[in-house]
Amino acid sequence: MSGKRYLLTPGPTPVPPQVLAALAAPIVHHRSPDFRPIYDRCLQRLRAVTRTKNEVLLFAASGTGAFESAVQNLVTRGERHLVVTNGNFGERWAALTTAYGADVDRLDYAWGETPDPDDVRARLRERSAKAVWVVHSETSTGVVSDVQALAAAAKEEGALIVVDAVSSLGAVPCETDAWGLDVVVSGSQKALMTPPGLGVCAVSDAAYAAAGETPRFYFDWERTRKAQSKLDAAFTPPVSLVAGLDVALGLLLEEGLDAVYERHVRLGRAARAGAKAMGLDLFSPDDDRSAVVTAVRVPEGIDAGDVVKGLRDKHGITIAGGQGDLKGKVFRLGHIGFFDVFDITTALAAVELTLAELGADIERGVAVTAALEAYEHTQVA
Amino acid sequence: MSGKRYLLTPGPTPVPPQVLAALAAPIVHHRSPDFRPIYDRCLQRLRAVTRTKNEVLLFAASGTGAFESAVQNLVTRGERHLVVTNGNFGERWAALTTAYGADVDRLDYAWGETPDPDDVRARLRERSAKAVWVVHSETSTGVVSDVQALAAAAKEEGALIVVDAVSSLGAVPCETDAWGLDVVVSGSQKALMTPPGLGVCAVSDAAYAAAGETPRFYFDWERTRKAQSKLDAAFTPPVSLVAGLDVALGLLLEEGLDAVYERHVRLGRAARAGAKAMGLDLFSPDDDRSAVVTAVRVPEGIDAGDVVKGLRDKHGITIAGGQGDLKGKVFRLGHIGFFDVFDITTALAAVELTLAELGADIERGVAVTAALEAYEHTQVA
Repeated sequence: MSGKRYLLTPGPTPVPPQVLAALAAPIVHHRSPDFRPIYDRCLQRLRAVTRTKNEVLLFAASGTGAFESAVQNLVTRGERHLVVTNGNFGERWAALTTAYGADVDRLDYAWGETPDPDDVRARLRERSAKAVWVVHSETSTGVVSDVQALAAAAKEEGALIVVDAVSSLGAVPCETDAWGLDVVVSGSQKALMTPPGLGVCAVSDAAYAAAGETPRFYFDWERTRKAQSKLDAAFTPPVSLVAGLDVALGLLLEEGLDAVYERHVRLGRAARAGAKAMGLDLFSPDDDRSAVVTAVRVPEGIDAGDVVKGLRDKHGITIAGGQGDLKGKVFRLGHIGFFDVFDITTALAAVELTLAELGADIERGVAVTAALEAYEHTQVA
Repeated sequence: MSGKRYLLTPGPTPVPPQVLAALAAPIVHHRSPDFRPIYDRCLQRLRAVTRTKNEVLLFAASGTGAFESAVQNLVTRGERHLVVTNGNFGERWAALTTAYGADVDRLDYAWGETPDPDDVRARLRERSAKAVWVVHSETSTGVVSDVQALAAAAKEEGALIVVDAVSSLGAVPCETDAWGLDVVVSGSQKALMTPPGLGVCAVSDAAYAAAGETPRFYFDWERTRKAQSKLDAAFTPPVSLVAGLDVALGLLLEEGLDAVYERHVRLGRAARAGAKAMGLDLFSPDDDRSAVVTAVRVPEGIDAGDVVKGLRDKHGITIAGGQGDLKGKVFRLGHIGFFDVFDITTALAAVELTLAELGADIERGVAVTAALEAYEHTQVA
């Protein structure tokens, strides 16, 4: 049936209609007065959302491409780098730094665990590293790390800190300058409420100063910074996506970053309360930092893939399954970006229907109410 | 005044309304059945337009990013590569191969000259090279090279041939398989009638086999090919741009590639006939290969920048100025992609008005007629 569609994954995420309308505007030339004011405003808003006074570099690329810019600019073959992993994306960054010949020291946690700043400090005392690479929001598990504390540990031991904020920037606090984050990488397609295709990278003065000699061109920080500072992108920018991002960032700033963060905290609470009320176990932590994605274990005997498929085929709702070893064991409800509480109740209602159809022994008729209560009544610190 | 706008540059180029509408569609998940058929069809159409049976790799990147994929995959530090330059983009590829440590042998022509296959053959006999890097359509000058003959020369001497087809693919014939082109790089924002943000790269079996050890991840050919062959992009693809490209390629194939090429030849003739009728000298060659962009010298005493500015500020028309040493000396009329003859007459009429306002001694009242005649009456071989 040609019914309604609901995109409730942790990325790509739904895009507000104002942003879609901007994408459909006629193409303008990137060096013309039709584009430069949009570009200028977009870059200013990006600095505001990233909470930095530095230029935030904008690449035509996915988040992984922007992350590779950090690797190409910071990693020189043979240098030691400490990569903290606790899920799928930590694994990707370990593979990426390894591909560039770094002497990669890994601090590995099980998927679902939260990295401990004391472990980072201890490891760096044992073996120093040029930079510590951490994932802010591990989209594969729903764990949001305490990046402020991890950064403090790295800096105490003289290391740079590189943060994968692909699914966190614009959803949970990420104080780039105040926390001393040297590199913050993100993408357009998560909390920034824009289609995929733009990667962003905030770079501190210390990180620029630490840039090495690894060959690079497209992702070169210095070339990109110089060009952006003259509002003349080094290579033809994706003008439509930039115009969309500009509108999306305007919406975020209009709501106010604190209000945005509070909304995400309350959406996380709603998702967890609903899942628990059904009698399901959470995989992601049951705390207020988990405001990006809620990973839920399926009951014994149920395949999470069937839940995802059931929501999609019968109800037109797209949620995410588990990645890696979690495949079949968890499903993930995204709540970043253009989400309100009715997206959560829609997801929970459909999960309830689908699990019941699959014969799971769950509590019926309580999830939506529990979610609304959690959203409505709780105070955010 | 808030008047109409005309984008008549050689890139980004105007995008058909059907493509803009596709861009404004709600976001779908890249691994869902809402996207995979679009992705599959887009990749098939891309092979059809690129005239190859091989996978055409699709990157979230500008054309330069896709070109860098060729450099990262083919260039190993110290290897000799022959880079043919005759304009701005040849210079960029020389800089890019140099940045990756190639022993770059340059075959340099003056801007505006057309590379000679005999020169390539002679140079390779003198000093062999792993690959020859050529620009198909040098957007900075309007010169379109005889890539078929250049490729034959390279292959005779045992070198791979890498082609920058950023502004040529989909406008002039580019027979990837039939001409034995090993790598063909293009971008979405020229003749492919889609906003900027997608880079494409067709790779021959010989080029895959010649891939070296230079560190890479995001632009790795093998990773991209494997992922695409399963319709599961290695990294989140820009779903909106892919949906737009799919529609645009459908329009090209519906018109028929031969008809598309003929249209571009006739648009080129119209632009040149109009400029000459005004009494202006062409900078780009006055031949039928010059079907992408027409570069026109301004009369003595006139600054081409003032022509560009006049068209923009008084008439809402964006054309391009000169790059590098040609700055101030030429203006460039694009005619690739979503262009018809009325775009050419609009550009010529506005150029005529503007030059007259600037006090240039030009022939009035004949350019548009000459352009229409050239478009209407001539036969295309």
